[in-house]
Amino acid sequence: MQVTISRKAHFNAAHRLFNPNWSDEKNFEIFGKCSNPNFHGHNYELIVSITGEINPDTGFVMNLDELKQIIQEQVDDYLDHKNLNLEIPEFKNLNPTVENISVVIWSRIREKLDAKLKLKITLFETPRNFVEYSG
Amino acid sequence: MQVTISRKAHFNAAHRLFNPNWSDEKNFEIFGKCSNPNFHGHNYELIVSITGEINPDTGFVMNLDELKQIIQEQVDDYLDHKNLNLEIPEFKNLNPTVENISVVIWSRIREKLDAKLKLKITLFETPRNFVEYSG
Amino acid sequence: MQVTISRKAHFNAAHRLFNPNWSDEKNFEIFGKCSNPNFHGHNYELIVSITGEINPDTGFVMNLDELKQIIQEQVDDYLDHKNLNLEIPEFKNLNPTVENISVVIWSRIREKLDAKLKLKITLFETPRNFVEYSG
Amino acid sequence: MQVTISRKAHFNAAHRLFNPNWSDEKNFEIFGKCSNPNFHGHNYELIVSITGEINPDTGFVMNLDELKQIIQEQVDDYLDHKNLNLEIPEFKNLNPTVENISVVIWSRIREKLDAKLKLKITLFETPRNFVEYSG
Amino acid sequence: MQVTISRKAHFNAAHRLFNPNWSDEKNFEIFGKCSNPNFHGHNYELIVSITGEINPDTGFVMNLDELKQIIQEQVDDYLDHKNLNLEIPEFKNLNPTVENISVVIWSRIREKLDAKLKLKITLFETPRNFVEYSG
Amino acid sequence: MQVTISRKAHFNAAHRLFNPNWSDEKNFEIFGKCSNPNFHGHNYELIVSITGEINPDTGFVMNLDELKQIIQEQVDDYLDHKNLNLEIPEFKNLNPTVENISVVIWSRIREKLDAKLKLKITLFETPRNFVEYSG
Repeated sequence: MQVTISRKAHFNAAHRLFNPNWSDEKNFEIFGKCSNPNFHGHNYELIVSITGEINPDTGFVMNLDELKQIIQEQVDDYLDHKNLNLEIPEFKNLNPTVENISVVIWSRIREKLDAKLKLKITLFETPRNFVEYSG
Repeated sequence: MQVTISRKAHFNAAHRLFNPNWSDEKNFEIFGKCSNPNFHGHNYELIVSITGEINPDTGFVMNLDELKQIIQEQVDDYLDHKNLNLEIPEFKNLNPTVENISVVIWSRIREKLDAKLKLKITLFETPRNFVEYSG
Repeated sequence: MQVTISRKAHFNAAHRLFNPNWSDEKNFEIFGKCSNPNFHGHNYELIVSITGEINPDTGFVMNLDELKQIIQEQVDDYLDHKNLNLEIPEFKNLNPTVENISVVIWSRIREKLDAKLKLKITLFETPRNFVEYSG
Repeated sequence: MQVTISRKAHFNAAHRLFNPNWSDEKNFEIFGKCSNPNFHGHNYELIVSITGEINPDTGFVMNLDELKQIIQEQVDDYLDHKNLNLEIPEFKNLNPTVENISVVIWSRIREKLDAKLKLKITLFETPRNFVEYSG
Repeated sequence: MQVTISRKAHFNAAHRLFNPNWSDEKNFEIFGKCSNPNFHGHNYELIVSITGEINPDTGFVMNLDELKQIIQEQVDDYLDHKNLNLEIPEFKNLNPTVENISVVIWSRIREKLDAKLKLKITLFETPRNFVEYSG
Repeated sequence: MQVTISRKAHFNAAHRLFNPNWSDEKNFEIFGKCSNPNFHGHNYELIVSITGEINPDTGFVMNLDELKQIIQEQVDDYLDHKNLNLEIPEFKNLNPTVENISVVIWSRIREKLDAKLKLKITLFETPRNFVEYSG
């Protein structure tokens, strides 16, 4: 009897899309305004979804206070109000697209979770664009 | 050619999280403010999702008027403006976490549906926490 | 040059609508399911709006960190996960309708604000019902 | 490493639900107010979800500018501000239920996509009713 | 001590924008796709806001059950699933723009309200366009 | 008979909060993480509200296509995917708080509007913080 429980969170960050192996012209051709060298930014809205069995003692798949603590440490403290390109090691050589950010967040939360639980990340870059990643 | 059709609904209820086998201290340690013996409450927002084939005569997976009637009887009349711990038989010996409420709602709707249809419940306890259950 | 800045917050609570001068029948006639003696509850979503001049040194009408602290102490710590009828002194003799809750919240925040600032409260009892109060 | 990227879009249209093989009475019995011969209408909110591998050069599953162009041509230019029953060839002999509209949109976008990508359509007929279709 | 209480509602309708004193060319020049003679449609989302004193016996500005009944009769029964141009007398000689629809709804609700109460209508034609009218 | 019509729009930008007359310590004390010298960013959601008489020929307060064009030129082309501190002249000596951004947007749209129309700007910096400015 698998149930999925989800918790919303959010952070703000600056980034630019950029491939260092390409010319500036090629970067602008592919990434358009998103390659602005002065950066732009987003309010990232995050949904962390955990799937597992209901614990009969608590009625919980996972205590949300524990999940909130993991999100605080792995996402909020690490990414909020940061420049993703300049300040986050994972993006030194990885383009901070919403796809790649979701993979980074998934990995950071995954390592803090019980192996029996499944994890899915939904990440909104804007209210109109979002990605889902389940490992 | 399977299509999923979803209908939103909502109800309000009071509850507390509580395990009668534990001391008050242990209940407070695990459930925090949610174990307040005077109860607190939520606006539960519900999404009922039905998967099946499109009927070629109607173009419907299921007539939404029929689904609305089932939700009215199985969820709204049964749970709306109720105290889940005190008034709902399923929670006499089951902690009314959002996980367990979703399982109860799933079972109540499942028994009214054609066996060929699949059912998934999404239940928001707050705009920031929600669960999904598919049986 | 008056600007209004708003901050959203939220809390959960149980309540019942009840006039102790009326019979149970009259209470049920006027308040319907909302007079359930076992209580029901809501996720209250709150918008606190502050109007004033922009401070030329900060570019702020008011520092939102300071406003968040006031909301935390005056609303969240005081009302969240509470039974409004049983646990909140203001509602010992005042019916906890969304109108009256908004007036109580307005008064509690008003006394912590600089007299030059105007205050408006918007309080959602459900996503479909809300009140506004400006003193 | 499959990631799903989604883009929201929207269009407005008029329609009526109607089965030409049935009497008007039977149409009204099954479709109710939705069979009004003078038509009614909706704001359709669309989510187009594409699943595939992240391209290591771009960090994209698919360039959203390309996806926006496909949605513009296949959905917006074709359906926006139209009468579905009278003006859209697919619905000459197909009831324009939200289920059938989602299948038509899926087919129109599918033929423009790289075969390696998976496609899912989520279509809201109202903020309270929606369907999902993945082929 | 004036408080404003608001209630959300919704209806669907078909319409076209059209000035019978103008040529078809002029109608298309001014109204664009909205002048399609085959009609298009919208999900209209409505907020009805009532301002008045709190009744000390009930704690209500106005009983929402009474307001829901007025909205049902004056808006839902009258406009839902209708063709505004063909079926609603007010629009026989009045262009059914969202501005004019809000004025019609305001007038229909106003005549059912106590004279001491103030009324404001907010009407969303789409999630991105809306009007406000207070008489 | 004054009616207000509103149109939603959006743009993304990077910024930092910073007062050049203060030390870095004082900037961090007042602006916290928002003073990160590497910038952070937001999805700004904008509501432009125009109040005026309904034109009896069109049924419009203002043609929304014209308003969309003004927003495109004055806001989107000017601010979208920009670094507010480095690239927007108005913020060379003005802290790009959401209050000050709303005043800049108001001024840019105001000068393109007919003098008989009133203008109000609502600007969301995040889904939880927003300002309103009416001149």
